[in-house]
Amino acid sequence: MSKLRGKKSVSLSGVTAGDTALSSVGEKGNDLHYRGYEIGDLAVNCEFEEVAYLILRGKLPTRRELNLYKHHLKSLRKLPGEVLEILEKLPSSTHPMDLLRTGVSALGCFQPEKIEEAESTAAEIAEKLISSTPAMLLYWHHFTKSGRRINLDIEADSVAEYFLKLLHQGEVPSSWIEAMHASMILYAEHEFNASTFTARVIAGTGSDIFSAITGAIGALRGAKHGGANEVALEIQQRYQSADEAESDIRLRVSNREVIIGFGHPVYTIADPRNPIIKSIADRLSQENNDRKLFDIAERIESVMWETKKMFPNLDWFSAVAFREMGIPTNFFTPIFVFARITGWSGHVIEQRQEKKIIRPTANYVGPDNREFVPIDLREQLKESQGRGN
Amino acid sequence: MSKLRGKKSVSLSGVTAGDTALSSVGEKGNDLHYRGYEIGDLAVNCEFEEVAYLILRGKLPTRRELNLYKHHLKSLRKLPGEVLEILEKLPSSTHPMDLLRTGVSALGCFQPEKIEEAESTAAEIAEKLISSTPAMLLYWHHFTKSGRRINLDIEADSVAEYFLKLLHQGEVPSSWIEAMHASMILYAEHEFNASTFTARVIAGTGSDIFSAITGAIGALRGAKHGGANEVALEIQQRYQSADEAESDIRLRVSNREVIIGFGHPVYTIADPRNPIIKSIADRLSQENNDRKLFDIAERIESVMWETKKMFPNLDWFSAVAFREMGIPTNFFTPIFVFARITGWSGHVIEQRQEKKIIRPTANYVGPDNREFVPIDLREQLKESQGRGN
Repeated sequence: MSKLRGKKSVSLSGVTAGDTALSSVGEKGNDLHYRGYEIGDLAVNCEFEEVAYLILRGKLPTRRELNLYKHHLKSLRKLPGEVLEILEKLPSSTHPMDLLRTGVSALGCFQPEKIEEAESTAAEIAEKLISSTPAMLLYWHHFTKSGRRINLDIEADSVAEYFLKLLHQGEVPSSWIEAMHASMILYAEHEFNASTFTARVIAGTGSDIFSAITGAIGALRGAKHGGANEVALEIQQRYQSADEAESDIRLRVSNREVIIGFGHPVYTIADPRNPIIKSIADRLSQENNDRKLFDIAERIESVMWETKKMFPNLDWFSAVAFREMGIPTNFFTPIFVFARITGWSGHVIEQRQEKKIIRPTANYVGPDNREFVPIDLREQLKESQGRGN
Repeated sequence: MSKLRGKKSVSLSGVTAGDTALSSVGEKGNDLHYRGYEIGDLAVNCEFEEVAYLILRGKLPTRRELNLYKHHLKSLRKLPGEVLEILEKLPSSTHPMDLLRTGVSALGCFQPEKIEEAESTAAEIAEKLISSTPAMLLYWHHFTKSGRRINLDIEADSVAEYFLKLLHQGEVPSSWIEAMHASMILYAEHEFNASTFTARVIAGTGSDIFSAITGAIGALRGAKHGGANEVALEIQQRYQSADEAESDIRLRVSNREVIIGFGHPVYTIADPRNPIIKSIADRLSQENNDRKLFDIAERIESVMWETKKMFPNLDWFSAVAFREMGIPTNFFTPIFVFARITGWSGHVIEQRQEKKIIRPTANYVGPDNREFVPIDLREQLKESQGRGN
């Protein structure tokens, strides 16, 4: 990783800010491992809960352990009534990321982490948040859109199924649930990205995990980070056909416009998550008999590679996959949250073990040693300067 | 700043993570300047609003500019009714920092920042938060303690006065208001400390200022950061006399216990804010005819210098000063928030101008290239390993 050259658009690029055993990113330029396991093996073979167990509990579970774990996660879905009442007060125009930021912060007021027990509580609170954040979003969504207080206590074997069923208020194809598992695995963890780093900086001061996750949600909200999958869809939806997309993107590239969804601050060769999510997007598009969006996304992929040697990152075909599952665009980044809570929390646990505060320094570029002028002399000063004295 | 040696308990110590023109800290080991002005001049001669103007608007105001500014800040105190209703739902056991974190996040749902206009809006939102966060805290405080919905629309010339009057529900000595101005000036800005750095990491992703401030509040909450002034008071209040404090602290020092409130990750010689807040704490103690706490704090200061050559930081005598003004201990860090919103917001504005995402890297310390075993073979694997095969 230290082989990477610093990038101009990235501060601290290539600078080591701590240790992690959770993942290694781009060591060969195009690889990703969670606790030493290759991302492709995990995304194709595992349920999301299996990977959450790996990240939060340190190893891949046996079948029996996974069943117990899923049972436990299901029991954590319930939210305090007051939290639901708070969500009801937030306007329907609320950005879903602001909703989650506020909901997680509020939950932390009702069930705060006891810092003195923090060594044992962080993973449990992470599991509470993984289980209940989809309920926060969708309770508020249906309430503010239709005034309905939906039932949150539904049968659903996994977080992926829980989210999709709460969203669509009914059964969903099993292929969608599988796609959601894979997508959440791909989004679960990614070393010291900006939101995870936020969580570590917050945890480093000795603060609680709700503060760390609340801050991380705030960081993920940005268009240069989690918000990228939403922008990716906006780009894809600009076009009526792959041909139209190709000619417009060529024009934009020649005008040096940045196309969101391509390139990566760490991967230099390719994003290993792209082929996995691309094949999922492909399959869902086929099932829906609606290839337009996928074809446009794929054509832009070709053009970006041909003209700029830039590869799509996870966000690009995630946008297509989410769209094919009928997920509203502004829920894309919240799905990223549901998944990434695992990684964020794993890093909070590590930062606590590291027992360090994160405190860099700044390069001072302002004026030095200015003379202080008392307030009632400042006007005179301005006037006298104005007179050319 | 780059002359500083890295400290073992601090990650990224001495590493430059960006530019700032807002403050320079400890360039000579014991100095602090805001935009080039020495902290002593500002704390002794200015009102807090004057310094907020300096940090957010770039220069010290004239009398006329300051009057207009204070008038504007007063007009921003009002909170949406729904935000007050949300605060009412948070339990009386809520940590006041969790309250502020949730209140600021909720306010961001009602009056979100339009990112496309962010260049002009950040300072305005900062001013809204400086003006209204004391109201959030004290509305909730009185409501949950006594069931009273206090009037937030009171006469108060400054944030300092507004806070003290809302807290005590009546007039307060002018010396307290002056002390609060000075204290808030001392707490207003401090380069790339952990909460400010949190705000910059969040802003670097293109996120909104409410997210940045919410995250910064979460970081400040930690005992190694803003929470330190609360711990300082707990230490001082352990003792009945300066003599008792001295013998106990000598014992703790010889047992290598860390005494919160002493030393600093950046200042090497002394904290220039200490003599200013110490003289304020001294004056308030004299006025109250109650020297016990001040004497204990001062004695511990001597012992720490004699035994460890460690100097008190801003938190140490702030605890005494706040206590003398009848401020509940768990409001100490919230006062830090009211003041530091100025610095945090100034840094959000700078980070946006820098147009960089902050994304360091990690040192991977986990296992490499583990073989993936499908879930139903894991139990067998464990058993066969158990059998010694």
